[in-house]
Amino acid sequence: MARIVMKFGGTSMAGIERIRSVAARVKREVAAGNQVAVVVSAMAGETDRLVGFCREASSLYDPKEYDVVVSAGEQITSGLLAIALQAAGVPARSWLGWQLAISTSDAHASARIQDIDMAALEASLAAGEVAVIPGFQGVDEHGRVTTLGRGGSDTSAVAMAAAMKADRCDIYTDVDGVYTTDPRIVPRARKLKKVTYEEMLELASVGAKVLQTRSVGLAMKEGVRVQVLSSFTGEDAPMADTLPGTMIVGEDEFWEEIDDMESQLITGIAHDKNEAKITLVAVPDKPGAVAAIFAPLAQANINVDMIIQNIAHAAGSTDVTFTVPAADLARSIEVLNQGREAIGFAELVHDTRVAKISVVGVGMRSHAGVASTMFTTLGERGINIQAISTSEIKVSVLIEEDYTELAVRVLHTAYGLDAEDVAA
Amino acid sequence: MARIVMKFGGTSMAGIERIRSVAARVKREVAAGNQVAVVVSAMAGETDRLVGFCREASSLYDPKEYDVVVSAGEQITSGLLAIALQAAGVPARSWLGWQLAISTSDAHASARIQDIDMAALEASLAAGEVAVIPGFQGVDEHGRVTTLGRGGSDTSAVAMAAAMKADRCDIYTDVDGVYTTDPRIVPRARKLKKVTYEEMLELASVGAKVLQTRSVGLAMKEGVRVQVLSSFTGEDAPMADTLPGTMIVGEDEFWEEIDDMESQLITGIAHDKNEAKITLVAVPDKPGAVAAIFAPLAQANINVDMIIQNIAHAAGSTDVTFTVPAADLARSIEVLNQGREAIGFAELVHDTRVAKISVVGVGMRSHAGVASTMFTTLGERGINIQAISTSEIKVSVLIEEDYTELAVRVLHTAYGLDAEDVAA
Repeated sequence: MARIVMKFGGTSMAGIERIRSVAARVKREVAAGNQVAVVVSAMAGETDRLVGFCREASSLYDPKEYDVVVSAGEQITSGLLAIALQAAGVPARSWLGWQLAISTSDAHASARIQDIDMAALEASLAAGEVAVIPGFQGVDEHGRVTTLGRGGSDTSAVAMAAAMKADRCDIYTDVDGVYTTDPRIVPRARKLKKVTYEEMLELASVGAKVLQTRSVGLAMKEGVRVQVLSSFTGEDAPMADTLPGTMIVGEDEFWEEIDDMESQLITGIAHDKNEAKITLVAVPDKPGAVAAIFAPLAQANINVDMIIQNIAHAAGSTDVTFTVPAADLARSIEVLNQGREAIGFAELVHDTRVAKISVVGVGMRSHAGVASTMFTTLGERGINIQAISTSEIKVSVLIEEDYTELAVRVLHTAYGLDAEDVAA
Repeated sequence: MARIVMKFGGTSMAGIERIRSVAARVKREVAAGNQVAVVVSAMAGETDRLVGFCREASSLYDPKEYDVVVSAGEQITSGLLAIALQAAGVPARSWLGWQLAISTSDAHASARIQDIDMAALEASLAAGEVAVIPGFQGVDEHGRVTTLGRGGSDTSAVAMAAAMKADRCDIYTDVDGVYTTDPRIVPRARKLKKVTYEEMLELASVGAKVLQTRSVGLAMKEGVRVQVLSSFTGEDAPMADTLPGTMIVGEDEFWEEIDDMESQLITGIAHDKNEAKITLVAVPDKPGAVAAIFAPLAQANINVDMIIQNIAHAAGSTDVTFTVPAADLARSIEVLNQGREAIGFAELVHDTRVAKISVVGVGMRSHAGVASTMFTTLGERGINIQAISTSEIKVSVLIEEDYTELAVRVLHTAYGLDAEDVAA
């Protein structure tokens, strides 16, 4: 007997026919002798509808009441899945956030799960009932309904799996796993059997929008084995534990079945077109100058990513280049112009036509080797590198946006990631 | 300062524009120095949508999960009205059924309110907050969500008013009060200023579908003064306590301002086309024969209304005629045919083309006088009376359905109920 959390997203819950197909999938896990909790999203489009009502009622809506309104979407699907499971002969009941209870902070609309009371749930699971839990919602210490922020059902599922000490947290979504890169760009992209939490965080934050980033961080902290699978592979597909999804695991498990560590050098290539580049021209080349630039940006909660300080000009000044999220560009320019006197730059140049390409892999031993392959490969295609940054498991470069797809393709080949056969 | 419960139905909550108009109405009551609790229905159509989902998921749905699903409709509108009130500058918060708590029996989908915990609510009202309460929902002793049955929000409002010891329970609906009869049949029907609980029960159960019958019974038991008013008389209408709605009150208050009791003989004329007539021909005229007919019908939960036993035939047998709800006719015939041998009737004749016309009034002193006027008036128009029944405050006759409107019109005139001028 294993304990399994299954999570189904909005497209899997969109209408009774799909909910019935989810019930059939859950039934197979139960028939295999497993204890199962299911975490559900609202029907596709429903949360947008409810958020729309709140915004229409007041642009400055009270987040406490917003949470009352939007949490109704998952309440509805949890009741409906319980009905569909019972109709399929599977004992089941819904557990609303306040019923379990799932205790959260009182940061309404972006609450964090603090504790899940397992007493009642354990008794129900022991009695052979499937627990159906609305994702995204909880209750705070004042007894008010909270929600976790958009996409929060992934986090609900991982937190549930941690509280249940589940053997696996299966996230059913509309993609069938995590790939070496975006398959729309590289048809020869391979689905990964395993990926580490750290790699997933890098891949997720740079475009592979499979899981809410926060849920991956929580899975890493709690050591929850997360599996990403498709909920659209037909009802006669094999059971989840033999389905070819992607397991997200810790490093120990990642290396378990891999004999030749060298072959695992790079796990995937990510890309991100949502960055903007800012260059401050002729900043005084003196101590404290850089702090004068980045302190006010940090205060404004603007997340600066890549930073390059060019070699000094003869005149005792230098150019400083860095990237910010494109959505924060206007605000960044405002903040920097306000501080222009303190910083002392001559000119501000910005560019949103850039892309960040990242090579990710826990097997990366020598950044130098990986980076060298990267520069050579891109150089051969005439792709100019505007900035570089590295972390333990990643080398990123900033390039002109138009070259994004080309860069991803040639790097995918260069690091030996291409599948031998293109999937049918 | 008065304490007021205001209840708004589904059409009043259908969309944010209407919810804003409800907020404006609530604001005027608050501005007048009143403490206010508002009970809301789901948006028009929403409960049907949610019930439809449950039925589609399984025709034998679990009522516990049905309650989880359908209670979401009122949860949504309660949060939205709280937001709209805050936007209008009125402090407000929503209180879900489990938050107050509104304790009910565990008869899911048709639960009865047992108790309302007023501690937290009293503190909130004292602090000047408007309480927004989703109608129709509660929580049982097992901590599961319950609902009160369709139309249950009226009952929620009356129960809330009783718990708050409210001075008035204002039910805003899409009609502007209770009339002497159906204004679609009699344009000269008058809106009643006051009606007693008992009269309202008779008028409601026979066609004047203004309030859920159960809520009237509860108001009578708890002595809650209920006012029926329209929510569609424009935002600049005077405040509720001067609005020309209908007050539903006890008999003492009913008579307070009425000098000439004789003039109040009859309050209204009701009609009901949803009855069916059954005649059993040649039933043995002996003790126990009638019990053999009605005991099995009672066991099958079929509500028999009017009963006439004709004078005995020479052969020692008699005909027995009675009415049942038209919806129960097929089931009634089945039950009676199963008991045919025990009852011993020769033939079963049925007719759904009948209507019950009722003359209602607490001022009715002499049934004989009222009935005599009724028979004379109908006889003059050639309308044949098929059955008669009476209660303390009502005389009902069964007639051919085609004569319904004519009978209502001539009786309305005969009892002096016609308004002098037809309302514009």
